[in-house]
Amino acid sequence: MSTSKRTLKMGMVGGGQDAFIGAVHRAAAALDGQIEFVAGALSSTPEKAIASGRELGLADDRSYPSWEAMLEGESAREEGDRIDFVSIVTPNHLHYPIAGAFVDAGFNVVCDKPMTLTADEAADLADRVRAKGTAFCVTYNYSGYPMVKQARHLVQSGAIGEVRKVIVEYNQGWLATELESTGQKQADWRTDPGRAGAGGAIGDIGSHAEQLVSNVTGLKIESLLADLTSFIKGRRLDDDANVLLRFEGGARGILTASQVCVGGRNDLRLRVWGSKGGLTWHQEDPNVLHVTTLDGPDMTYHRGGAGLCDEAVAASRLPAGHPEAFIEAFANVYLSAAAAMRAGQDDGQMYGYPDVAEGQRGMQFIEAVVASSQAGGTWVAP
Amino acid sequence: MSTSKRTLKMGMVGGGQDAFIGAVHRAAAALDGQIEFVAGALSSTPEKAIASGRELGLADDRSYPSWEAMLEGESAREEGDRIDFVSIVTPNHLHYPIAGAFVDAGFNVVCDKPMTLTADEAADLADRVRAKGTAFCVTYNYSGYPMVKQARHLVQSGAIGEVRKVIVEYNQGWLATELESTGQKQADWRTDPGRAGAGGAIGDIGSHAEQLVSNVTGLKIESLLADLTSFIKGRRLDDDANVLLRFEGGARGILTASQVCVGGRNDLRLRVWGSKGGLTWHQEDPNVLHVTTLDGPDMTYHRGGAGLCDEAVAASRLPAGHPEAFIEAFANVYLSAAAAMRAGQDDGQMYGYPDVAEGQRGMQFIEAVVASSQAGGTWVAP
Amino acid sequence: MSTSKRTLKMGMVGGGQDAFIGAVHRAAAALDGQIEFVAGALSSTPEKAIASGRELGLADDRSYPSWEAMLEGESAREEGDRIDFVSIVTPNHLHYPIAGAFVDAGFNVVCDKPMTLTADEAADLADRVRAKGTAFCVTYNYSGYPMVKQARHLVQSGAIGEVRKVIVEYNQGWLATELESTGQKQADWRTDPGRAGAGGAIGDIGSHAEQLVSNVTGLKIESLLADLTSFIKGRRLDDDANVLLRFEGGARGILTASQVCVGGRNDLRLRVWGSKGGLTWHQEDPNVLHVTTLDGPDMTYHRGGAGLCDEAVAASRLPAGHPEAFIEAFANVYLSAAAAMRAGQDDGQMYGYPDVAEGQRGMQFIEAVVASSQAGGTWVAP
Amino acid sequence: MSTSKRTLKMGMVGGGQDAFIGAVHRAAAALDGQIEFVAGALSSTPEKAIASGRELGLADDRSYPSWEAMLEGESAREEGDRIDFVSIVTPNHLHYPIAGAFVDAGFNVVCDKPMTLTADEAADLADRVRAKGTAFCVTYNYSGYPMVKQARHLVQSGAIGEVRKVIVEYNQGWLATELESTGQKQADWRTDPGRAGAGGAIGDIGSHAEQLVSNVTGLKIESLLADLTSFIKGRRLDDDANVLLRFEGGARGILTASQVCVGGRNDLRLRVWGSKGGLTWHQEDPNVLHVTTLDGPDMTYHRGGAGLCDEAVAASRLPAGHPEAFIEAFANVYLSAAAAMRAGQDDGQMYGYPDVAEGQRGMQFIEAVVASSQAGGTWVAP
Repeated sequence: MSTSKRTLKMGMVGGGQDAFIGAVHRAAAALDGQIEFVAGALSSTPEKAIASGRELGLADDRSYPSWEAMLEGESAREEGDRIDFVSIVTPNHLHYPIAGAFVDAGFNVVCDKPMTLTADEAADLADRVRAKGTAFCVTYNYSGYPMVKQARHLVQSGAIGEVRKVIVEYNQGWLATELESTGQKQADWRTDPGRAGAGGAIGDIGSHAEQLVSNVTGLKIESLLADLTSFIKGRRLDDDANVLLRFEGGARGILTASQVCVGGRNDLRLRVWGSKGGLTWHQEDPNVLHVTTLDGPDMTYHRGGAGLCDEAVAASRLPAGHPEAFIEAFANVYLSAAAAMRAGQDDGQMYGYPDVAEGQRGMQFIEAVVASSQAGGTWVAP
Repeated sequence: MSTSKRTLKMGMVGGGQDAFIGAVHRAAAALDGQIEFVAGALSSTPEKAIASGRELGLADDRSYPSWEAMLEGESAREEGDRIDFVSIVTPNHLHYPIAGAFVDAGFNVVCDKPMTLTADEAADLADRVRAKGTAFCVTYNYSGYPMVKQARHLVQSGAIGEVRKVIVEYNQGWLATELESTGQKQADWRTDPGRAGAGGAIGDIGSHAEQLVSNVTGLKIESLLADLTSFIKGRRLDDDANVLLRFEGGARGILTASQVCVGGRNDLRLRVWGSKGGLTWHQEDPNVLHVTTLDGPDMTYHRGGAGLCDEAVAASRLPAGHPEAFIEAFANVYLSAAAAMRAGQDDGQMYGYPDVAEGQRGMQFIEAVVASSQAGGTWVAP
Repeated sequence: MSTSKRTLKMGMVGGGQDAFIGAVHRAAAALDGQIEFVAGALSSTPEKAIASGRELGLADDRSYPSWEAMLEGESAREEGDRIDFVSIVTPNHLHYPIAGAFVDAGFNVVCDKPMTLTADEAADLADRVRAKGTAFCVTYNYSGYPMVKQARHLVQSGAIGEVRKVIVEYNQGWLATELESTGQKQADWRTDPGRAGAGGAIGDIGSHAEQLVSNVTGLKIESLLADLTSFIKGRRLDDDANVLLRFEGGARGILTASQVCVGGRNDLRLRVWGSKGGLTWHQEDPNVLHVTTLDGPDMTYHRGGAGLCDEAVAASRLPAGHPEAFIEAFANVYLSAAAAMRAGQDDGQMYGYPDVAEGQRGMQFIEAVVASSQAGGTWVAP
Repeated sequence: MSTSKRTLKMGMVGGGQDAFIGAVHRAAAALDGQIEFVAGALSSTPEKAIASGRELGLADDRSYPSWEAMLEGESAREEGDRIDFVSIVTPNHLHYPIAGAFVDAGFNVVCDKPMTLTADEAADLADRVRAKGTAFCVTYNYSGYPMVKQARHLVQSGAIGEVRKVIVEYNQGWLATELESTGQKQADWRTDPGRAGAGGAIGDIGSHAEQLVSNVTGLKIESLLADLTSFIKGRRLDDDANVLLRFEGGARGILTASQVCVGGRNDLRLRVWGSKGGLTWHQEDPNVLHVTTLDGPDMTYHRGGAGLCDEAVAASRLPAGHPEAFIEAFANVYLSAAAAMRAGQDDGQMYGYPDVAEGQRGMQFIEAVVASSQAGGTWVAP
């Protein structure tokens, strides 16, 4: 928790009154004292934007009625005074135009996932990011957990041998009823293709599952075959996704994501088996990593405990047994991106955060899943 | 554990020296004192058959060198003296000829799973069973667990609403290396298409997973799509199976079975979610059943504890907290079949054991999986 | 499950209609086909004894109206025909007279715990056993679990260093209400000092906890200090016991046993920590043993899995992941005692069962606990 | 996470370079944006204090070389500009003089536990707090967990009936070796009676266990009997504590705290059983609360989930399944104290934080434990 690094100034688009994830982003960004929240266009409704800014203590002249006004206002400020990056926490359909505009103006960006509405938008955005050389972070926040970093280390260092089989699942139950008809804001936009994109459960949480697998294994999905369902009458997007995976090199897998698993909270689980061992990680019990081998007892590694890689150690704040959780993992993503920003770099692999290439791959995945399912279940290369 | 019922006489085919599952069958059959092991043709090698019979304390005149000799010898005995049923615990390819012969001779049969080598054999056998009216039990032993019976009760009584999503998995790791080349007997025949059938992992353990789902939900698989893999070079049968399921009525599911999940023991898990709740059962922790609802705390039911259905209560021997396990579940299958035999009935649904129809359905499932995978992943109706 | 050993003949005293533990003993004894139940005096009420014998299939001439008749009848039979041992499963107050009489007549004995009503009786009985040289087994059944044997091995081989701290607990809830006033037979006699002895919870289940600690650690309790409570108005024996332990050599510990822990089933847990590691075992999840070390990940050993000692391997019947449980552990105690009987020995340490010395130590423990508590909490040497 | 409340200014004493808990306090205080860290005397070594202040971004004129200087400097500032409260995170022996001085000067105080070195100091401090009417919070941080608040609600609303039995344990292993001889700073002062007080493990972590029990049950410990041990040769304070508890009204309990339980992290567990139910909470899995009843299934409540009391809901920031952990619980204590400060109140019961009365009770507990143990194990009223 050293804070000798230069504090970065963050602006935010979205995340005002009634929003959920914006507050998480702000708390995560603030956790380590390296990032200061100084500007915002916190709602697409100007009055709400201004009111939210006042509630959150923004200076009046940096609480903007729209993201366009914020882009203009911050661009007009001196370097060092203006925001170092913008954090975009709007519904999905706004990611692309806003991120694109800030990137073009030379700002670093932190953007919620999925990165855009379509893979074409994602490809375009990635091109523009590369052209500008700005840092671009997509908040696949689960990759920030120390024990996910340990899992990645074990797999990619060969500790479990050649990967053969993956099962990743993200089971939720909050959309098991027709919640969108009750006026619940989250359910409303997340089931609307115009704002959420072509994927429902697969876009909202399946995308996290895909990123977790890719991040930990480093393997590329060669092709996939999907069966999407919408169990609630009238729901316009899938609320359940079952996907078969084939990876380059021969590994096979299953990805399942659902929002109708009654009782499911944020039950994101990853299991990976290789020729020499296996591992299991569960987001709701994130401080441990279970490892198996061909001929020894099962082992449980603990965050803050013995036997961890440098990345897992660096991503940890507390001694073992004092649990860290969601907010710290989220903060780790911000810290890693901030380090890249300070260095004027954008290599997520090097700095340990999901970059625009991961965001683009995520959009390709979602589109491939939807295409496969619409074709009745065919193998599609993402 | 009342034993006022008439003791039944059991003969066994297979299960001699070096076998694994035969001893389990004998212990399970004996557990409640209702079944007496009196005759056997315990190996396909006559000398080994005789030696095994001696070791196990069979009378010399009822320890036969071959199943044909046993069929003849027992048929020649008076009713009341001859065996009431034969238990067939040979490698898969012998199930059909032996079972068929005993059925034709009017004997009741307990047969290991998968029931035959092919679906055609299964259909023929089912016809012959129905023609004779003998009791025929296929030892899908996991259906004997009390908490599986409770799960079945909850689902079929509507406690979790209309079933939407099923995930069933059976993860093992014992074939993660090329064990069949070491002379290990189990690995040898279970990876040999001639003795195991067309399915490797899918036949050996995927069949249990299928039966568990079908037994608990009562739903019929409308179509399936499979991706089978053999990870060990030179292995002739699949050691990993990933299957998408579609059920009549609209439920969807995933079935996965693998023998290369390093560290996996007999990790058979079933999760079912409906419109009103969900449930989870795990074979390695079989005395509990976890249940979720739309708006209450998670609940855990315990074998021997409060709130169980009659079938679960009847299938239990000990107070809650004194764990029962594999052998008791296996014994429950024998007890249920024995009850049907005493009554001269063969309705597994009524008596609570898997009957010839379930065995036939299991073979159709295996063949459909193999066909789907060989076609590169197409929807196939089993 | 080899059965090449000579089958032993068992007689039973107690365990007729309405009894609980007798049926467990019979099933455990029968499990491996090495013990045959041939004679019984199954109730203190002659008619009930005879009726129970008939139900259980005893020959008429070996179903006795009283234990005295059985002692006489069996003694009159030829060696080889008469019972090899008697299993005594009556309420506690009858253990001493019956066991003493059979011992004096030269029979081997399996006796439920606690062994007698008083420590004086226990001392006398131990003397008589030693005088006769018969095998005498006290069914502290939890010591039969393979993973308890593994725990014992780890501690006594020094794997966790010098033992420092022990916590053992046995939490039940079945007497959380005044069950004895409802006519429930188990509650009736177990809360009656005349039939149960001076200890309630401490005698019934605290005695198991004591034996588990002693068996696993091999340490002698140097002194103890107890606080016994009876929470149910009018109950004549303790239903809750909290005990501080000091062991020879300096280790310290806590033993707690309760029958008013609502929701508690048979929650027997043992934790032992030494200078180099620690271990945890739980009776309701008996197939695993958790081990910690000074500087590695936590480890979980599985029955049937890697890294187990010879005793744990020998006490196991099934592959890992096919759970074994209460009945198998109970059967292991019988098998070990049977081995000693066949050899004409009585050294429980060598043959792996709790012998008369352990039974005597158990009675000294109970009396010391009661004495300490009655004195208001003083250190007492058992 | 609303921040419409007035932001409070925090000064800190202790918590500079090499310290552990200071950083936790700062992060917890900052988490919700309601508290600003503006002043500090961060080390007892003036140079280190100044250097630490610079590292942490304090203004030069508010980074003081000593707490006396800070008291003087802050007192000289205008109300509204000066700190609203001081957070004291020094080794234990400095709590009393520093807290006393700030209290006397009218400042609110947040103080680490145990509150003082002796019960006399605690009594004096409590008097002075009451005389001044300032808010005084002792950071028994575990009481900030939402599910602890739920446990407290269930017990105190009578949901589990009259409390009968309590088991609370805090097992650590970090002092299983002679760590204090290696120069490790935490081990050094925590095993030094002059700086830690009369209690080792019992003071450092047993005090948390005591507070957890008292907080959840609301019961007063009538008397206790303790057995303290120091397992490491030469260690001057206990590293293992076993304590029997008797509560007013008749409940009984066990409290155990140890720092030599190899593999123990921060294994703080509370179990409470009453006449109608029981509950279990575990600090390393803090988002759930397990509840048992006389005649239903076991239940698991989830933070953020169904069925929680107002206090548990208010203390939660994220949806169920996105785990919260140690830092959020710690922050909850700060938030509750801050609310009292804003209102000019000091009633911890009303505002939901541990106040000076709890701090005093904690010191009486520690002294009673030490006295009981030194007397060889006698009942002592705390």
